[in-house]
Amino acid sequence: MSRFNHLEPSSLFKALEAATPTDTLPATQTLLDAARFNKDGLLPAIAQQHDTGEVLMMAWMNREALEETLTTQQVCYYSRSRQKLWRKGESSGQQQRLKSAALDCDGDTLLLQVEQTGPACHTGRRSCFYISMDREQATINSEPLIDPTTLYGKK
Amino acid sequence: MSRFNHLEPSSLFKALEAATPTDTLPATQTLLDAARFNKDGLLPAIAQQHDTGEVLMMAWMNREALEETLTTQQVCYYSRSRQKLWRKGESSGQQQRLKSAALDCDGDTLLLQVEQTGPACHTGRRSCFYISMDREQATINSEPLIDPTTLYGKK
Repeated sequence: MSRFNHLEPSSLFKALEAATPTDTLPATQTLLDAARFNKDGLLPAIAQQHDTGEVLMMAWMNREALEETLTTQQVCYYSRSRQKLWRKGESSGQQQRLKSAALDCDGDTLLLQVEQTGPACHTGRRSCFYISMDREQATINSEPLIDPTTLYGKK
Repeated sequence: MSRFNHLEPSSLFKALEAATPTDTLPATQTLLDAARFNKDGLLPAIAQQHDTGEVLMMAWMNREALEETLTTQQVCYYSRSRQKLWRKGESSGQQQRLKSAALDCDGDTLLLQVEQTGPACHTGRRSCFYISMDREQATINSEPLIDPTTLYGKK
């Protein structure tokens, strides 16, 4: 039994600030009841390659997508443009296998450690973050691993 | 002169999908004109420790915060709760020095490589992502480096 179970959702993340690795925490469902999904019911989810540390992409999850991801260990986002679940890799084959998931201190952002098959980005690049900027100028910082027409077919 | 300079902002990120590291890209200001700030004028910004790869936190930037960050190399966010610029470390001393910044493929998310002084999290932990979750259960995955009362004074 967790000493955090009696708390109101609004107090849970504040109480967890002082929790330690040896504490028994509430069940994941209790955490998700308290998580601060935005007004569209979404949390931003950062995907990081678990062994190299490369940040691959950021996308969004509703509760259903997150629960499916935790259950199947295959990462499922919510596509805001298509307004439906987006099982990463369903068109491209470039799936993300979940290694671990964590919420942040105020319960409004997710960090996913994943095993990414091939490129994460629809352009064929490993990471979506390929447009570097300094004060004056932008530059492209990486090349595609795979031609995107190979991933999705010609359009 | 960049071959991408004649494009409408709505077409720029699509055109950059096929750009390479040897291309001359538009100026940062042109990129920021095209970046897809949300309806509150904000972009999510992921902060990653540049050498270890640890994802430290995610916060938000308006254009002013991003421009200040690129100019000063000290990371400045926009606090949604306080509705003003948030110069990271101004209360705690735990600043982030910018090493590099990148926009993602569709121009709506930032990845910052930073040198974080001490903990990034207001709880005194190195990273904000300390609440791990599996399908059933949550656990705390790290302990504070510093007592938060040392960072902010007793409350």
